Amino acid sequence: MKVGLTTAQLNRLIELGASPAQLSEQFCDAGTCNRYFQKTEEALIRINREKLQTLVKSRRRPSLCSLEEALAAALRREGFLQVTTPVILSGKFLNRMTIDGSHPLNDQVFWLDKNSCLRPMLAPNLYDISKKLMPVIPLPLRVFEIGSCFRKESEGRSHLKEFTMLNLVEWGLKEEDRIDRLKELAKLVLDAAEITGFQMTEEDSVVYGRGLDVVDADGLELASTSMGPHRLDAAWKISCTWVGLGFGLERLLMSREKANGIRRYSKSLSYLDGACLSMK
Amino acid sequence: MKVGLTTAQLNRLIELGASPAQLSEQFCDAGTCNRYFQKTEEALIRINREKLQTLVKSRRRPSLCSLEEALAAALRREGFLQVTTPVILSGKFLNRMTIDGSHPLNDQVFWLDKNSCLRPMLAPNLYDISKKLMPVIPLPLRVFEIGSCFRKESEGRSHLKEFTMLNLVEWGLKEEDRIDRLKELAKLVLDAAEITGFQMTEEDSVVYGRGLDVVDADGLELASTSMGPHRLDAAWKISCTWVGLGFGLERLLMSREKANGIRRYSKSLSYLDGACLSMK
Repeated sequence: MKVGLTTAQLNRLIELGASPAQLSEQFCDAGTCNRYFQKTEEALIRINREKLQTLVKSRRRPSLCSLEEALAAALRREGFLQVTTPVILSGKFLNRMTIDGSHPLNDQVFWLDKNSCLRPMLAPNLYDISKKLMPVIPLPLRVFEIGSCFRKESEGRSHLKEFTMLNLVEWGLKEEDRIDRLKELAKLVLDAAEITGFQMTEEDSVVYGRGLDVVDADGLELASTSMGPHRLDAAWKISCTWVGLGFGLERLLMSREKANGIRRYSKSLSYLDGACLSMK
Repeated sequence: MKVGLTTAQLNRLIELGASPAQLSEQFCDAGTCNRYFQKTEEALIRINREKLQTLVKSRRRPSLCSLEEALAAALRREGFLQVTTPVILSGKFLNRMTIDGSHPLNDQVFWLDKNSCLRPMLAPNLYDISKKLMPVIPLPLRVFEIGSCFRKESEGRSHLKEFTMLNLVEWGLKEEDRIDRLKELAKLVLDAAEITGFQMTEEDSVVYGRGLDVVDADGLELASTSMGPHRLDAAWKISCTWVGLGFGLERLLMSREKANGIRRYSKSLSYLDGACLSMK
């Protein structure tokens, strides 16, 4: 009868970034297993320490910050205007996205009081700002924001309660150009993020209706895309063609760095740029 | 008897960025006053439109974003490690800052549930991350974060419910060097923000104890500074010398741009980079 690592030992090694092979080792007795655990833990701690020491000596910032800067610069070069809007969202704006009591997203919203919540997405603020810019800026109008969004999630392998969204929208392009433009813009963003091997497939989003789904080589969702005119536009008194894309920056990093879980590259007190901070 | 602008007219012109001289004009009769209002409103709308059009043609991002980038780059060059931590804070962390029921800040905290709130400051997360880095990174350890903080404020001329803080801390310097280092670091940040004419005076902060207060030429508070060993350190099991500085980025912009109020450069749906978005 072979002995494997205990659940606590497994969790500790996963936290430290162990490989699947390291986790599946089997032993003749508990003593051998414990010695293996200690040796492996020490080795992984050393690797995490070195990662942090290198970070302090070289780049001095987490990849999440450099990715945000790289994506923003690439989009500005393409003619997109960067905006930065409040995290606290009026409930009225959620209603305009048809997110009400019966909507699947509703249970994931963090409410501050009966009229305001933490934004679960950037789209409502981009609609509002775009509507206000339309009388001033000639079409095509190109706008994007990068910022935190919040959803009550199970905090699993690929979801976070606070995550960093990039949302971009281009208003006033030719209707027949929309699909090509979506692909062009997805490529622009994923190239700037240094991600290769992604694929696009059609999808039906709960909020945005029909669009293209962008996944990485392992099938992980990297972006959602949509286009208009759209049934949600009327609530913002907008009547215009558009294409829009949304990306989760932590997902892009998880995909690029082939990380075991999304938390390693998130805004966190447990991890810093992929390295575990629990050294004991 | 002279006639002045109505409250509604005054508010509209203030929103559009009118000068004090434009607001204090007096007229012989209501008709002349209304014509003056219309003419002034039109002229100010034109100025705001041009600001937005220039923004889209040139920089394509609000000063808040470029300021954040400039400050982060200056601090990394000085050897500081950038971190990015969650907005949602455990109530336990607030208690460690001695912010409890009797504390003046307590009423300004946005609670999500009985255990978690929106961070009203960056300091608790910087304490936590620093403590975790200390066994790994040799002193002096230099860490900073730039991110949103939240306080229920009256949303007056110089306060916002969501504002962007820069907090930096340097651990393990010589005790006798602390004041000089505080001045050096304040100058580093304010130079990177292109602010001139600031002054430093001693202050007593509710949270941090004694430090230096940094104000601009008009007496507006630009930063708060503090130093340790400090009575709050024990809650984080830290025993070390340190200096720390906190800056509100919107304040820095209000000061630099000589803006009428702090909202014009904030994360907002009403203003974009100082320009009013309500064009009618």
